[in-house]
Amino acid sequence: MRSFKITVAYKGSEYAGWQVQRNAKTVQGEFEKALKKITGQSLRAIASGRTDSGVHAIAQVVSLNIDTPMAPAMLCRALNGNLPRDISIESIEEVEMGFHAIRDAEGKRYRYLIQDGRQRDVFAGGLSWQCTYQLDMETMVRAAEFLVGEHDFSSFEAAGSERATSIRDIRELSLCRKQIAGFSQIVIEVEADGFLYNMVRNIVGTLVEVGRGAREPEWMLEVLAAKNRIAAGPTAPPEGLYLLEVYY
Amino acid sequence: MRSFKITVAYKGSEYAGWQVQRNAKTVQGEFEKALKKITGQSLRAIASGRTDSGVHAIAQVVSLNIDTPMAPAMLCRALNGNLPRDISIESIEEVEMGFHAIRDAEGKRYRYLIQDGRQRDVFAGGLSWQCTYQLDMETMVRAAEFLVGEHDFSSFEAAGSERATSIRDIRELSLCRKQIAGFSQIVIEVEADGFLYNMVRNIVGTLVEVGRGAREPEWMLEVLAAKNRIAAGPTAPPEGLYLLEVYY
Repeated sequence: MRSFKITVAYKGSEYAGWQVQRNAKTVQGEFEKALKKITGQSLRAIASGRTDSGVHAIAQVVSLNIDTPMAPAMLCRALNGNLPRDISIESIEEVEMGFHAIRDAEGKRYRYLIQDGRQRDVFAGGLSWQCTYQLDMETMVRAAEFLVGEHDFSSFEAAGSERATSIRDIRELSLCRKQIAGFSQIVIEVEADGFLYNMVRNIVGTLVEVGRGAREPEWMLEVLAAKNRIAAGPTAPPEGLYLLEVYY
Repeated sequence: MRSFKITVAYKGSEYAGWQVQRNAKTVQGEFEKALKKITGQSLRAIASGRTDSGVHAIAQVVSLNIDTPMAPAMLCRALNGNLPRDISIESIEEVEMGFHAIRDAEGKRYRYLIQDGRQRDVFAGGLSWQCTYQLDMETMVRAAEFLVGEHDFSSFEAAGSERATSIRDIRELSLCRKQIAGFSQIVIEVEADGFLYNMVRNIVGTLVEVGRGAREPEWMLEVLAAKNRIAAGPTAPPEGLYLLEVYY
């Protein structure tokens, strides 16, 4: 038996998220189907975290134990040859037995893309939040600063989630505006030691409340203090979210 | 009655081309449906040319005669409010009665995008040709030079097409390689006084034969001289093609 660390990119638009489900096309489902085709074995692939339906990954990390004589590069080529074009194995590395994509993760980084205002980029469908409000970067940047560091993020956790603790350490939360192919895009990147369920999308939805002028940046302090999901803004849609990196 | 020149962008992936068809979703169909909703009238919109299924437009031009008191900017907003997000009215201009998007066109410019080699960009699906050959820019550029100017392009016309003449004047045919989000993309742009059916896709498919090393650049002279579709390379797929500009 050997252990592999596999980095996977995917466009989530056509999938009901990472995790295998009955009667739905999932990234894990496609991945395990390709594995079975190549190895003949029914194997379970463990991702660093489930991504929801419509959420993308630039570098999801998957751990896999497998009995194979194949070199990592050969396994990579074989998998890509049997996967649809919207899923790509970026790299495969042999690691020490016992490596576990969830347990061993020490942090993650996400990106969130927004196209705001009245601009209509016909090619952006499914790849960013087409947010009709015109957003103000300055107030959003100020609001974001209140979230950096170690806090109880209960207000940004999907209601009904069960975790031992809702304290997380946001190491970085950056916002910038870029021009891409004539369209203005807001790029938000957030890195933390871990994330609660829906935490990034809830942070983005809350920052947008500030950016559109409905709230002041200082409102973030209230939201944090409330420790209640109802205190924060709405959940931003999945199509703007990209899992960017997992740290081990 | 007033006459309008309407510039429309669309992502063609979800449409069976521009032209209205029974039992198929088309860009013209969506456009005329939105028009009817706003004006109550069943109007016919004339585009500068039909684009095929899967082909995109950055600036398709449409002429429309309509009896309305609406200002162009108002009509534009109303249309965008009633169109799906993958179709966008970029501008509307009132023009002299009699303007005709096909008859008055004096030239067109297309762009074609290729991602070549073994790279897998999971986000490029439907937006460029994912061509598995590794292409050589230098020989493609040399091959392209043979096509510039006035020639009989019969070899690049879809078999069975009926046109008065197959002579066209290619004013410019440029190729360059760009790095976009870490992926190498070949951008081909071609401008002519007019195009035969499938001419751009047939030119691209033929240039790729040279780029992948199957043919020498000078082969283009033979292809042109043959005046027969069978002499040229295969038709490049629709998803890499963008109607970029129509000149009046």
